Amino acid sequence: MLRKDLLDIHSLTREEIISLLDQATPFKEIFTRSVKKVPALKGKSVLMLFYEPSTRTHSSFEVAAKRLSADVTNFDVPSSSVTKGESVRETIETLQAMRTDYIIVRHPRSGQPAAIAKMTNACVINAGDGAHAHPTQALLDAFTLREIHPELEGKKILIIGDILHSRVARSTTEIFLRLGAKVAWLAPGSLLPQYPPAGVTCFTDYETAMRWEPCALYLQYFPSLREYHKVFGITEARLKRIAGEGIHIMHPGPVNRGVELCDAVMDYPLSLINQQVENGIAIRMSVLYSLKAGH
Amino acid sequence: MLRKDLLDIHSLTREEIISLLDQATPFKEIFTRSVKKVPALKGKSVLMLFYEPSTRTHSSFEVAAKRLSADVTNFDVPSSSVTKGESVRETIETLQAMRTDYIIVRHPRSGQPAAIAKMTNACVINAGDGAHAHPTQALLDAFTLREIHPELEGKKILIIGDILHSRVARSTTEIFLRLGAKVAWLAPGSLLPQYPPAGVTCFTDYETAMRWEPCALYLQYFPSLREYHKVFGITEARLKRIAGEGIHIMHPGPVNRGVELCDAVMDYPLSLINQQVENGIAIRMSVLYSLKAGH
Amino acid sequence: MLRKDLLDIHSLTREEIISLLDQATPFKEIFTRSVKKVPALKGKSVLMLFYEPSTRTHSSFEVAAKRLSADVTNFDVPSSSVTKGESVRETIETLQAMRTDYIIVRHPRSGQPAAIAKMTNACVINAGDGAHAHPTQALLDAFTLREIHPELEGKKILIIGDILHSRVARSTTEIFLRLGAKVAWLAPGSLLPQYPPAGVTCFTDYETAMRWEPCALYLQYFPSLREYHKVFGITEARLKRIAGEGIHIMHPGPVNRGVELCDAVMDYPLSLINQQVENGIAIRMSVLYSLKAGH
Repeated sequence: MLRKDLLDIHSLTREEIISLLDQATPFKEIFTRSVKKVPALKGKSVLMLFYEPSTRTHSSFEVAAKRLSADVTNFDVPSSSVTKGESVRETIETLQAMRTDYIIVRHPRSGQPAAIAKMTNACVINAGDGAHAHPTQALLDAFTLREIHPELEGKKILIIGDILHSRVARSTTEIFLRLGAKVAWLAPGSLLPQYPPAGVTCFTDYETAMRWEPCALYLQYFPSLREYHKVFGITEARLKRIAGEGIHIMHPGPVNRGVELCDAVMDYPLSLINQQVENGIAIRMSVLYSLKAGH
Repeated sequence: MLRKDLLDIHSLTREEIISLLDQATPFKEIFTRSVKKVPALKGKSVLMLFYEPSTRTHSSFEVAAKRLSADVTNFDVPSSSVTKGESVRETIETLQAMRTDYIIVRHPRSGQPAAIAKMTNACVINAGDGAHAHPTQALLDAFTLREIHPELEGKKILIIGDILHSRVARSTTEIFLRLGAKVAWLAPGSLLPQYPPAGVTCFTDYETAMRWEPCALYLQYFPSLREYHKVFGITEARLKRIAGEGIHIMHPGPVNRGVELCDAVMDYPLSLINQQVENGIAIRMSVLYSLKAGH
Repeated sequence: MLRKDLLDIHSLTREEIISLLDQATPFKEIFTRSVKKVPALKGKSVLMLFYEPSTRTHSSFEVAAKRLSADVTNFDVPSSSVTKGESVRETIETLQAMRTDYIIVRHPRSGQPAAIAKMTNACVINAGDGAHAHPTQALLDAFTLREIHPELEGKKILIIGDILHSRVARSTTEIFLRLGAKVAWLAPGSLLPQYPPAGVTCFTDYETAMRWEPCALYLQYFPSLREYHKVFGITEARLKRIAGEGIHIMHPGPVNRGVELCDAVMDYPLSLINQQVENGIAIRMSVLYSLKAGH
């Protein structure tokens, strides 16, 4: 891979996507060893630049970098400085001057990681920007479902929840489409984008969506209202039915229990939620390893 | 040691206690070397999961893990999530999926680390839970006093302060009793448990307690009231008397100066407070090294 | 160097200053390598003790220590404890008992790092104390200008901004004077010390100061008032003029854009601001490497 940055799924070639997925497999194998570490990025420095808190994504990247023997430093962002565009540029010049090799960015504003990537020779990895993209999430999702269905071509994935405001829905939909899978969305009309991408089917009714016969349900964040649970959430009754049909459940986490999912889903044998977490580290190792450091 | 978790002193055999104490000695010797580090846990990951802040215990575990060459990651707990039982389970599933080797837990609720230990293959170390237990504190206390009195059998330790609400008093009392020492408690009646463990003598008066002839005073946190200092605290006059009798002073820290102890105690030659801090790292290295990683 | 602590520029000999500057050059060369790391401080522990937040200085020291293979631990200071002198002593006794090799201190009170240095065998490095000193900033400033003018003897540096309340101005002025350079200050009278050090010229008017013919302008923090910008700030018009005269610009950061400097300064080819950041890491490696660990 000759790419310096990972900003979104859109800008990757299909070959690059496949290569990032394939490369994650040997990294995942390391996790079963006693020494869960390789010297691949020894002496490289990774700066975590989170303008929005996210314990899970932050620690996943941190563990991934450490398992590659990189040195990880948090760059604490004063909360007051999130909205100042100029101060972002100054921060990046500082990190660039520090000869940082990788900058992992999360930012509430769409496009900020792309803007940052232009300011620095360091590899920039988008860890989520506004409603735009969350490419490592999409990669780990594809990696996880590919472990179940090695051939994703033609597989049907139903994404349920607030699609409109979700970078995860956007990136995950894109990667599944790029890999030849079929994607549908299920949400109340007010949470569906007006113009879905070509090839995406939209549903507003649970029963109708299920007749589309998805092989996996991808649950997304719901606004926290019990009513949504009744209409779209995976209740115990629905869980029984999908278990019978061998349908897998995925969720990017953290789960809003009692809203997207009933408690019983924690013991649902076809849940891939924990595999997503584990694969998240392997995928992030693959991304860190595959990008081309700029200096 | 074939044990996966360290949850309290109660569940350890006497042999395990002795083994954890003995194992700490070679680790302590490392601290005098130029390179204060051994590769024992290279490639292992330690997750710090503190639902309650504690700078001293946190940094002691962190330094201990790093001196064993483990990788340490903080898992930042949003303060809002402390009370949700379900979200703890979800967090642990996440850490388990990340293939964490060790989880160091501090939690305000008694029994939470034990509940967590059942949810994961990772080694769980209780770094203090509610008023229940603080086993590494107890181990370091026993290790520290054993350096002064290699044979603890029959030695008398007087614990002073708020016993009722203290996990330290509970765990430290237990370990000294298990090692054959005698323990007494000194506190106002309202801060003493109604049913002390067998073999523990209770005092409510300082002079009476001192006639019991302890070899060490173990000062505990006092509610911050000057009156307590007058009645139970180690004033300058009392410090002079106990110095004459060769009585050692211990304290788990942080000291509430002017309440449990007068300022002069900082220069008291028989204070073991700093040794407790140093030994805390050695004991935590011994614990991390001795537990049996689950995968 | 046989010195245990770095507290200010004043207490260094000229030979020590030169040695710290010279030693930074090979460390800076490491930054261009793929593996930006040397094993010089492997097994040493560095504790970060910041009683005042400072993302830039904190991460610069952290990266410097990691590039020397030291283990870095943050000692989180509860904000309530900043003003208690006694609790500082207790914290230092704790760090000393933990056998910390280096303590990096930032404190709002002048003289606190010097007081701390007396309490511990660990090497204490002042990372800024009140209006007193910021020696690593001064060293990196001298290192940076020496890269442009290898012979600083007789060179003229004009420091502009709030001199009165600035530890940077104090330390940076001192190091340039010690190295034979000439220093002048430019500020409104209310922000100038009543008694400047011998050899320092004071200006209160921009035009007059420029007729002194400095080779570098060192911009300091300004109270955030647009009026200051008009009177002393580097406006676009002034930037054009100094560009023509080949005058370099330095700033310790973070820049208060629109106050000390206009936006155009980001692209000013004679700006040394980013070099200062990079050199900051090299200088801090040199300092950590050169101090004599106490145990």
